[in-house]
Amino acid sequence: MNQLTNLSPADQLAQHEQEAKDLTRILPASKKVYIQGSRPDIQVPMREIELTDTPTGLGGEKNPPVMVYDTSGVYTDPNVKIDLNQGLPNVRETWIAERNDTERLNTLTSKFGQERLKDIRTAEIRFAHIQKPRRAKAGHNVSQMHYAKQGIITPEMEYIAIRENQRQREGVDMRQHAGQNFGAHNLMEITPEFVRKEVAEGRAIIPANINHPECEPMIIGRNFLVKINANIGNSALGSSIDEEVAKMTWATRWGADTIMDLSTGKNIHETREWIIRNSPVPIGTVPIYQALEKVDGVAEDLTWEIFKDTLIEQAEQGVDYFTIHAGVLLRYVPLTANRLTGIVSRGGSIMAQWCLAHHEENFLYTHFDEICEIMKAYDVSFSLGDGLRPGCIQDANDEAQFSELRTLGELTHRAWQHDVQVMIEGPGHVPMHMVKENMDLQLEVCQEAPFYTLGPLTTDIAPGYDHITSAIGAAMIGWYGTAMLCYVTPKEHLGLPNKKDVKDGIITYKIAAHAADLAKGHPGAQVRDNALSKARFEFRWEDQFNLSLDPDTARSMHDETMPKEAHKSAHFCSMCGPKFCSMKITQNVRDYAQNQQHAEQATSSQTVIEDGLKTMKSVYHEQGQKLYHKV
Amino acid sequence: MNQLTNLSPADQLAQHEQEAKDLTRILPASKKVYIQGSRPDIQVPMREIELTDTPTGLGGEKNPPVMVYDTSGVYTDPNVKIDLNQGLPNVRETWIAERNDTERLNTLTSKFGQERLKDIRTAEIRFAHIQKPRRAKAGHNVSQMHYAKQGIITPEMEYIAIRENQRQREGVDMRQHAGQNFGAHNLMEITPEFVRKEVAEGRAIIPANINHPECEPMIIGRNFLVKINANIGNSALGSSIDEEVAKMTWATRWGADTIMDLSTGKNIHETREWIIRNSPVPIGTVPIYQALEKVDGVAEDLTWEIFKDTLIEQAEQGVDYFTIHAGVLLRYVPLTANRLTGIVSRGGSIMAQWCLAHHEENFLYTHFDEICEIMKAYDVSFSLGDGLRPGCIQDANDEAQFSELRTLGELTHRAWQHDVQVMIEGPGHVPMHMVKENMDLQLEVCQEAPFYTLGPLTTDIAPGYDHITSAIGAAMIGWYGTAMLCYVTPKEHLGLPNKKDVKDGIITYKIAAHAADLAKGHPGAQVRDNALSKARFEFRWEDQFNLSLDPDTARSMHDETMPKEAHKSAHFCSMCGPKFCSMKITQNVRDYAQNQQHAEQATSSQTVIEDGLKTMKSVYHEQGQKLYHKV
Repeated sequence: MNQLTNLSPADQLAQHEQEAKDLTRILPASKKVYIQGSRPDIQVPMREIELTDTPTGLGGEKNPPVMVYDTSGVYTDPNVKIDLNQGLPNVRETWIAERNDTERLNTLTSKFGQERLKDIRTAEIRFAHIQKPRRAKAGHNVSQMHYAKQGIITPEMEYIAIRENQRQREGVDMRQHAGQNFGAHNLMEITPEFVRKEVAEGRAIIPANINHPECEPMIIGRNFLVKINANIGNSALGSSIDEEVAKMTWATRWGADTIMDLSTGKNIHETREWIIRNSPVPIGTVPIYQALEKVDGVAEDLTWEIFKDTLIEQAEQGVDYFTIHAGVLLRYVPLTANRLTGIVSRGGSIMAQWCLAHHEENFLYTHFDEICEIMKAYDVSFSLGDGLRPGCIQDANDEAQFSELRTLGELTHRAWQHDVQVMIEGPGHVPMHMVKENMDLQLEVCQEAPFYTLGPLTTDIAPGYDHITSAIGAAMIGWYGTAMLCYVTPKEHLGLPNKKDVKDGIITYKIAAHAADLAKGHPGAQVRDNALSKARFEFRWEDQFNLSLDPDTARSMHDETMPKEAHKSAHFCSMCGPKFCSMKITQNVRDYAQNQQHAEQATSSQTVIEDGLKTMKSVYHEQGQKLYHKV
Repeated sequence: MNQLTNLSPADQLAQHEQEAKDLTRILPASKKVYIQGSRPDIQVPMREIELTDTPTGLGGEKNPPVMVYDTSGVYTDPNVKIDLNQGLPNVRETWIAERNDTERLNTLTSKFGQERLKDIRTAEIRFAHIQKPRRAKAGHNVSQMHYAKQGIITPEMEYIAIRENQRQREGVDMRQHAGQNFGAHNLMEITPEFVRKEVAEGRAIIPANINHPECEPMIIGRNFLVKINANIGNSALGSSIDEEVAKMTWATRWGADTIMDLSTGKNIHETREWIIRNSPVPIGTVPIYQALEKVDGVAEDLTWEIFKDTLIEQAEQGVDYFTIHAGVLLRYVPLTANRLTGIVSRGGSIMAQWCLAHHEENFLYTHFDEICEIMKAYDVSFSLGDGLRPGCIQDANDEAQFSELRTLGELTHRAWQHDVQVMIEGPGHVPMHMVKENMDLQLEVCQEAPFYTLGPLTTDIAPGYDHITSAIGAAMIGWYGTAMLCYVTPKEHLGLPNKKDVKDGIITYKIAAHAADLAKGHPGAQVRDNALSKARFEFRWEDQFNLSLDPDTARSMHDETMPKEAHKSAHFCSMCGPKFCSMKITQNVRDYAQNQQHAEQATSSQTVIEDGLKTMKSVYHEQGQKLYHKV
């Protein structure tokens, strides 16, 4: 894509025709389906993967389609015309409106927002159809947690219940291992009431700003499917708005459950508007990044007023969750002095710098209740930032990190008193044997509020491969109970990820999240594995590709060795060649076992007869060897 | 490379000049060093990575070089001229000869080997300098275990002790976490005697065929660094000898500790000769693959005689370990009938097919003692194959798999009675929560004989990314105690890996193995992490690249965002940009903490004075408020 700045929206679309086509192409053998809820406007999207029949020689049965969780929004719905200039359809508009506890404002509340709207220098890059924002009516709290605590099941909750169940058809192989879930509660079927209860009790959050009605509701909590987040965002050094929008749409296509826009360069406000209006998944931000831009990068010049205006600015755009580093307390800062890599969280460093410069307590901590007031007026969820997370293996699990975590536990309770939804951010860099300690302490001090970790990376020696060093830690901590995994791309520590890096990061984290679901024994998690394994066993190559997380890559790798179409139905693979095949032999084993069973049954029938004869014989003896007896 | 078949050796070399250059290029900022042992011919190779100084603003100190384990052989020694046609120099020749328990045979013992040597059709592709093989003199056992049990410390053992210690220089940051090693014994310094004891007691093996004197000794055992294996080998469908030799050399360059040649196509014998003569690491094979080729792919036509001849053929070429599926017993075969994917091990299927066809016990089991006799005449180690390993998540840890494992435990004891070295192969496909059960059972029934696992893959839904699905399981099982991890490439289940796939697989498995070393708390394992983290903190970009597992990739990813040379010494990274940097702030924190400490010390001196005054005051009061007292 070219810079949006140089082109009118119409020109852009014309230029991006091929990209738009690629973006809206449905995945192979897939069908976008919608499951209707209790009312016609609850239409929960899923992707149904069609499978071919088992070859006749192997039984010839029909293989039912497999339903998979779908984060791609209407981009993969052939019936919806995508127009990035218009933004996505409003899924939640009616639900929000009919609750009658919000009002549309005549203008933006944030001073900065108002200024940007009038700024002619940004006119060309501004999203054209900005709606007036909604805000809770005075005295109202519009958070999903607030409704949940009052026993209200919102349409969002019902939508999520349907979505999490990933309705499977009859005949699907539901076998799976029992799993070990460390005290989580993975239900066989998720009900709307269960969703409500989990949100009410703080174990799960539904990031769903009333100003992001385009968002398809989803849930983050350890008793649901493990989710993944993808970070995008430009920096002072590169990347334009259209590139970031493209990354967002591609990220959701490949399976990102939420997106964080971490932009730090110019035009943060406008970039975010484009992203939110076109995002089917919740958007998170770190508002302190933008606040810092407003004070020209000088951390000590930050004030509560500037930060507050930034929160409102972003809340009215529709950001669904805010990372807020309110746990970086002044007294914890010196605890990082002897670390190998000090403070590596950007937000953490900013707040540490501010605290030191003023020798005052972190204003995010001292103004925490005021922040909660803003959060509940728009239903923005907290992602309590771990500003003191370790930046390398050596610094893992130290006093600075765990002190902050305990404070995050305290803040969780304060947020809950406001009925504001909370999740907690976690590390970072942790060797494998120290991963569980993080999860255990978080569950304890944050009372099961969802944990949201960045990896963790399990070694520091592989820059260029940190999607992998971290997927190991991510899979493990997901298994232990982390609700959402923040992806790491191959470019971590090296540069800004491009589209390919975003894809590699996402697929890797889909693997980690799914491995965690399997290990927890999350109901239905193994369906896709079973279907793919069966396809593999039966040499249904196309089904293997289509069931995989990345069908294009699977297909193209296969074609490198065996490019011919005929090979896709061949009963052998490139490892063994056509003459010998281990899969074929298994069929012989089955025949053998069946014959053996028949033989055993035959033997056992024989045994019954013989036993019967023996019994009769003894009866005959007992009864004096007479064949006939008087009645 | 082109087919060796069409070119004379001289032509090949001319054609491969660029590849040869790439192959012998030493890694950036690295120096090949040799540490001498107790005798001048023990020269243990290592790679020393030079580091730059810390920038003046951050203290300006010298950073000592970091020593890393080096599997690349003399390919990265600029003083050695590489000639693939000649093979590598003989590291171990003298040691083997001076033990005086072997003899050079006048001809090959194997019938097949003799035939191939005379076959004019293979003359052109034959390695030109085949030596006459060595074999133990009658009545002798030349296994490292045999020497070890007699209390002999071989030069190989001393070599390994030096190699495992990875000698670190003064000033290197040796801090690391304590680790959790589940009962392993990770010594601070590995002595030759410790190596001997571990081999004698079967907890470690030194795969070192007397006919592979080119091999640089290495060890596989849970009390040593976790190792990785890379599989190469052609199939009936593709790849030529020169491609396989190239894969082997590249694989060792990137860090493969052993190589398995799994060729199943034509010219297996000649391919293997080329690979062994040019390999600085142990070579493993699955002899049943070649035996099957000899009976034209018909498993039921296999005989003990054909197999035995194959073992001798390969032992005399210099194969260091054999995968032998002697645990696939007839009675276990029907246990796989109800599996989702039956038997997926190629060797397992072959033996299952043979057992069923003959309704006889596996001839590898019934002839096990005879196999041991061959093994000890050449010092070939067993890699007892897990022919019944699960082929998918659903089939993990079932009765078939664990029954076979128990039999492998029994065979381990039988091999040890012959003083033959043994490791045990493990799965495969296992969800995370069921991984540890594999390790625990293996340690128990095989009495700590080294475990050698293939991954395991932790989910089946990501063909094209199975290096990652399996690295998760590999890292975990390595932590739990697995001694060597068999890599999985992205092409697993899809096709034959090319050079890029081999590299991706190896780097991924170096990550898994290293993450395991860190989690076990293996002494010195964290040195490289610490050095890289410090370089990162100090923005020494070049040092970060050079310390990483794959410097080329790290550098090129960095250059995508910040290509200018000047940026490599810039005190910021692309994520934050030049204006704000979290690393910079940490320096402020340190200054603050130091000032605070000074203040505290000042305060505390003040306190001492005040306390002193108070004490004096009370003394003054106690003693009746008189300033002067009589002595």
